[in-house]
Amino acid sequence: MARNTTVAADTGAPPVTRDLARFVTQHPSRGWGDAVEHEAHRTFVNWLGCAVGAAHHESVSAALAAVQVLQPAPQATVLGRHERVDIASAALVNGIASHTFDFDDTHLKTIIHPGGPVASALLALAELKGEAVNGRGLVDALVLGIDVACRVGNAVYPEHYDRGWHITGSTGMLGAAAGCARLLGLSEQQATMALGIAASQPVGLREQFGSMTKPLHPGAAARAGLMAALMAQHGFTASPRALEAPRGLMQVFSTKCDWREIGGEIGSRFEISFNTYKPFACGIVIHPSIEACVQLRAQGISAADIERIELKVHSLVLELTGNKEPADGLQAKFSVYHGCAAGLVFGRAGEHEFDDAVVNRADIVELRSKVVATVNAGIAEDECRLAAVLRDGRRIDVHIQHAVGSLERPMSDAALEAKFHSLADPVLGTQRSTALLQAAWQVGQAPQLPPLAALARP
Amino acid sequence: MARNTTVAADTGAPPVTRDLARFVTQHPSRGWGDAVEHEAHRTFVNWLGCAVGAAHHESVSAALAAVQVLQPAPQATVLGRHERVDIASAALVNGIASHTFDFDDTHLKTIIHPGGPVASALLALAELKGEAVNGRGLVDALVLGIDVACRVGNAVYPEHYDRGWHITGSTGMLGAAAGCARLLGLSEQQATMALGIAASQPVGLREQFGSMTKPLHPGAAARAGLMAALMAQHGFTASPRALEAPRGLMQVFSTKCDWREIGGEIGSRFEISFNTYKPFACGIVIHPSIEACVQLRAQGISAADIERIELKVHSLVLELTGNKEPADGLQAKFSVYHGCAAGLVFGRAGEHEFDDAVVNRADIVELRSKVVATVNAGIAEDECRLAAVLRDGRRIDVHIQHAVGSLERPMSDAALEAKFHSLADPVLGTQRSTALLQAAWQVGQAPQLPPLAALARP
Repeated sequence: MARNTTVAADTGAPPVTRDLARFVTQHPSRGWGDAVEHEAHRTFVNWLGCAVGAAHHESVSAALAAVQVLQPAPQATVLGRHERVDIASAALVNGIASHTFDFDDTHLKTIIHPGGPVASALLALAELKGEAVNGRGLVDALVLGIDVACRVGNAVYPEHYDRGWHITGSTGMLGAAAGCARLLGLSEQQATMALGIAASQPVGLREQFGSMTKPLHPGAAARAGLMAALMAQHGFTASPRALEAPRGLMQVFSTKCDWREIGGEIGSRFEISFNTYKPFACGIVIHPSIEACVQLRAQGISAADIERIELKVHSLVLELTGNKEPADGLQAKFSVYHGCAAGLVFGRAGEHEFDDAVVNRADIVELRSKVVATVNAGIAEDECRLAAVLRDGRRIDVHIQHAVGSLERPMSDAALEAKFHSLADPVLGTQRSTALLQAAWQVGQAPQLPPLAALARP
Repeated sequence: MARNTTVAADTGAPPVTRDLARFVTQHPSRGWGDAVEHEAHRTFVNWLGCAVGAAHHESVSAALAAVQVLQPAPQATVLGRHERVDIASAALVNGIASHTFDFDDTHLKTIIHPGGPVASALLALAELKGEAVNGRGLVDALVLGIDVACRVGNAVYPEHYDRGWHITGSTGMLGAAAGCARLLGLSEQQATMALGIAASQPVGLREQFGSMTKPLHPGAAARAGLMAALMAQHGFTASPRALEAPRGLMQVFSTKCDWREIGGEIGSRFEISFNTYKPFACGIVIHPSIEACVQLRAQGISAADIERIELKVHSLVLELTGNKEPADGLQAKFSVYHGCAAGLVFGRAGEHEFDDAVVNRADIVELRSKVVATVNAGIAEDECRLAAVLRDGRRIDVHIQHAVGSLERPMSDAALEAKFHSLADPVLGTQRSTALLQAAWQVGQAPQLPPLAALARP
């Protein structure tokens, strides 16, 4: 998240997105000459003939068989809600939901968030398959699907990401396709086709950060991967070299392709081992500072004791999160000052601590103003040094070498459970949330999956 | 189709697509240590909590509202078939069908096939909307949607295509989104969001040429654009600079971005004016040679008269279609020799003339062997010079300056009708096919669209 681009970019481009939107919405009906109008009809006639003519081609039949799996429409769970939708839509919506708070998992070497695209596709597919799928199969598919996405990520990161791709979505469709291929029990040849079909559908631009389309990326990747596996199962074909060919995905979307990252230690080193989870619902560069304030609070220090907080951080912290006066929750996610205030006052910084109301509370606003953050060249990205100068004259130093949630200091299972409850209790209620959590911990032993999905409905 | 890449490519890559497919299908269940197994459960728990926690976020609600439009599942026509599917799937399958024979339209400046992604999305959406949509609205949306796709294509072609993107799918989702935004009557702001959502979902790699995933590209682009418009209608957001920003689509997927191509003469010059239609069901470089043989036949020459056919062509013809002994229909599409034989024997080269049985007919095989094609530096891509040396000693010269189907010599409406019948009659029967054709020619005047879709069912 924190790298600068190495790819030259034109920053003087005209606002063509909006210009085109204005054009298509406001140009008058039939605002053109007869020749254009006639050509439109020729285009329509020709398109229609081509489509009707191929109606019984094997490619059309294969694609149709795959999309007919989406019937009946209400077949899969939208997590945390009553509505039911088709499995492709469930993969999409659950993938969006899981990345909406930017609170999900991170494969730090590539900053891929691998759970969203892979698990969202798998749960929807498992729900459809019903008793034909057990928890063991789901966990196997999760581990292997994540391995595929992260290995491709390792091969192309950072060039691919620097260029502007949101790597979670642009590798996630491969992870979802691989996981679904596993869950469906596809042959090697079919799985090759599934990866190939998925390779033509990379999702996601970093330009979308700050809009709803950022969380769309893992969702759309989940849907693309799921459908790719279903199409392959029904005989749809793709290039068997869709990833590695000179005009295959990897060389098309990255100038760096370290092929050894794909096969190195495959089957013995699993990328899910390097997955991490955020304790705080904001950008990872703020985490050391929040944790330092949480530790202050644990020593009995409260906001009323504070004269000043002196914070020494890595340069990226102020570059990305230097907003001292955030106006709302979204801005507060990019404010190391708010992170410190939340950590000291609440002892945590979950989604709730970024509510607009919390961000604008008088005591929080005041506490933010007492934080003085400076860049220090000797401080690493996941480190900070904090000195609390108290009203009584005392000075308390806190040093965070590696923030909690890093590979060096992973969140404990208990902390992960507390995080789960903070998210799920308001939606499902504590009792159901507890049952769902227990089912999730035991998913590898579950004889069948649908009950787990049912527990995730309020 | 005929350019060489200008982008350096690594041709020595290992077969990672198949390697990964083998790994995910064959690695043993729970073939890892306890730490990996536990991390898989932590990943699942964390993903589940994040998704449930965001269940009522506005982004999730907006996406859910959009996918609920896909219910009930059987709501739209698969052209030429009895089955009905949801509108997103109809856009997908009809987009696949229309490009399956490589017989659709071509915007020659960019070699985009614009009808597939735009019309497939529009017809499905129109069918859902029923009486709320009339033919005028459909034609308006078709012209404007195609304009958006082709203008973006103009701005990035050829660099984007040379790099390996199948430009039909990688700009088509913008055309589909624009067209659907128009048909839905979205506001300028909503249409900006629709284009932005679509911008994160470019589809298509040239590596897929020769597999079913090539025609998947316009289909998946149609689906992505349709869903982007529906999501925007329900409040989903994207970057308003998703196309032009330094990390927006255009700079991410092309180093050439000629912004003037987007806005130049917009609203007065329409790209659909430059759309062309193929008279023959194969690569466009063979068309002049086929037409020369069709003209020979029109002069009363038959296969039995031929001693030898001497053909002078552009170098690309032999580079791309130099297969003298094609084994089946797919290979015959890349054989200028077969094209000549079909033209002389049948007077046409539609999909039927590339049937496996036709390709292997003795007289066709013999006639192919009598064609001698040579490259001539003075011959243009859409030109050829043919000399038929007859058994009676005569020599007949034919010169095709511009092949039929080019901008200079467009197919006549009558030829387009004959092409339509050749495609649709075997599927729908002549009577229904005639009615459908008539409805298509009059689509701009149609008071409502669903009857047109109904006519396209057998």
